[in-house]
Amino acid sequence: MLAPGATIGILGGGQLGRMLAIAAAQLGFRTHIFCPEADSPAFDVAAAHICADYADEAALAAFASGVDCVTLEFENVPVEAIAFLSQKRPIAPSAAALRVTQDRWEEKRFLRGLGLMTAPFAKVDSLADIQTAIAELGLPAILKTRRFGYDGKGQAAIRIKEDAAAAWAAIGGAPGILEGFVDFSREVSVVAARKADGTFSAFDVTENEHANHILSRSLVPARITASIAAAAREAARRVGEGLDYVGVFAVEFFVLDGDKDGLIVNEIAPRVHNSGHWTIEGALSCQFEQHIRAVAGWPLGDPTRRCRVEMLNLIGMDVQNWPVLAAEGTTKLHLYGKMQQREGRKMGHATRLLGPDP
Amino acid sequence: MLAPGATIGILGGGQLGRMLAIAAAQLGFRTHIFCPEADSPAFDVAAAHICADYADEAALAAFASGVDCVTLEFENVPVEAIAFLSQKRPIAPSAAALRVTQDRWEEKRFLRGLGLMTAPFAKVDSLADIQTAIAELGLPAILKTRRFGYDGKGQAAIRIKEDAAAAWAAIGGAPGILEGFVDFSREVSVVAARKADGTFSAFDVTENEHANHILSRSLVPARITASIAAAAREAARRVGEGLDYVGVFAVEFFVLDGDKDGLIVNEIAPRVHNSGHWTIEGALSCQFEQHIRAVAGWPLGDPTRRCRVEMLNLIGMDVQNWPVLAAEGTTKLHLYGKMQQREGRKMGHATRLLGPDP
Repeated sequence: MLAPGATIGILGGGQLGRMLAIAAAQLGFRTHIFCPEADSPAFDVAAAHICADYADEAALAAFASGVDCVTLEFENVPVEAIAFLSQKRPIAPSAAALRVTQDRWEEKRFLRGLGLMTAPFAKVDSLADIQTAIAELGLPAILKTRRFGYDGKGQAAIRIKEDAAAAWAAIGGAPGILEGFVDFSREVSVVAARKADGTFSAFDVTENEHANHILSRSLVPARITASIAAAAREAARRVGEGLDYVGVFAVEFFVLDGDKDGLIVNEIAPRVHNSGHWTIEGALSCQFEQHIRAVAGWPLGDPTRRCRVEMLNLIGMDVQNWPVLAAEGTTKLHLYGKMQQREGRKMGHATRLLGPDP
Repeated sequence: MLAPGATIGILGGGQLGRMLAIAAAQLGFRTHIFCPEADSPAFDVAAAHICADYADEAALAAFASGVDCVTLEFENVPVEAIAFLSQKRPIAPSAAALRVTQDRWEEKRFLRGLGLMTAPFAKVDSLADIQTAIAELGLPAILKTRRFGYDGKGQAAIRIKEDAAAAWAAIGGAPGILEGFVDFSREVSVVAARKADGTFSAFDVTENEHANHILSRSLVPARITASIAAAAREAARRVGEGLDYVGVFAVEFFVLDGDKDGLIVNEIAPRVHNSGHWTIEGALSCQFEQHIRAVAGWPLGDPTRRCRVEMLNLIGMDVQNWPVLAAEGTTKLHLYGKMQQREGRKMGHATRLLGPDP
């Protein structure tokens, strides 16, 4: 176990890094943030930071020399940087786990290999591949880059065959996959923690609503049957085991229409996740504490939910509503300290504590 | 109201400053710590810090120029520093409030002026004064310095007349007060917040147990009658009003033996308080958030208690028990990041969440 007083290095300096740094401090750890962006929100709550590119090996080496272990808050840290740091310090999650989750095609093959359901998909490396894939999967379909997509970035819908060229241009002609359309009733996610010894602990299933491809609202408990909830948690357990994952991760699902208890895995996020923010006040241990515990080799905390919760993301202009939210007694307002408000930027969130389960 | 993104300056860099900085960050504020001690625990979670003496006006001026308002976590910041900073930035609590609470004699006169009960006391400036005071108050009694005492520092018991000279020497011949002995059954405290507009909000009364003059355990709810609880909260309200106080403060009481609902005010702490640490997980809003809200002019949060709680202080060697506490699911472990463990030093605390009220 990593003893209190040790320094945990975090790759990425956004709000997830900020909340990880706070959780680490509460357990007596120091944190050191590595992030290419100046004014990163996590810098303000960390003992030290380095602002440099992930390809800068001298900066990575300096970072490694100042920390006892390394973790990340950003899933698209180049695997090369992870591999470089792995030679110097323990790192979690591993380069091997990130290699799978950073590539939509690899990730879907991995999920299928576990026997989990995914949307139908095909690998596409050219416009001709797209036409072949359309013939196979049908339309509508979604063209996505294999790498570096999040929050709807690197995606384009294809509704009719004639959209294909524009979609291919929209994703920049990058290596992609075409995903068939899934007719789902709800989106849910499981945020879970796993230790190196295989210990696994999942939070209650969260129901998620998106607007413009960005999470807008989470609700716990999710309005799903107990058997779907159990299936989602079991799928997350298998994902964690399959990746030999260490830390907190999220698995996003589509719940199929009808009563077939069908669950489609949408994607894996190898990090703490926006749909787990409700755990800060809504669970006995929050996702950020769980991640620090897992990375430090501590016993995992108790994920028991304390009440019903609703989490609202504050995106762009939404944050201007802070005085109203700050005045709501049972609403816990979290603001990320981002000085520039931009459309689509996650500026904060608010968790409403709704009382006991009915 | 102070807008998110503003910088709050905090005088003092101990664990209270650390927890204030975290609460401020969660609401979107930056913090800047001023503390004379190197390696202060709050430095690790603040955007900036200055390590300088409170008498260093150039350093104070630099600090003021980097913040939007100032508060403190340490009650013995010299009033001169507070007065100096008051000319440059809004500051809470005020120099006037600190002048009262920094002097045990002034504080007791203030409390008596509000009609609140205190231990019998007499001002003593010489060994002869002590003998006169003993004749008046009887023995046993406690000799205390008027200023700069906390956690039992600057105190000496007088059991028989012949102890007087040794006690006088023990407090260094400093201006003092002699306090008569109070026969109490319990110690309780009220941690409360007050805004500049007079809004007042108290947490549930906390029962406290001390060992070697340092808080060792808090229990909420306190095992007292509803009428004593109401009287304690009302006394705290009057203290806040009398000091025209802004921020969180604590009032410590002795509960008298017998059924007379008697309450003796022991002392006022013009800051967040060790007996309020349970509020982090035990209340909807914690004392640190309440303080930041009060100082920023925001609406106060909801102080409603979420469950029964027990808070254990981890003093000196106690902290070595961290692996056991870290494995208890319903225990929330807080470690302060202090690198050196010393006898009597507050290294952390653990809050046990005990379930609903009976």
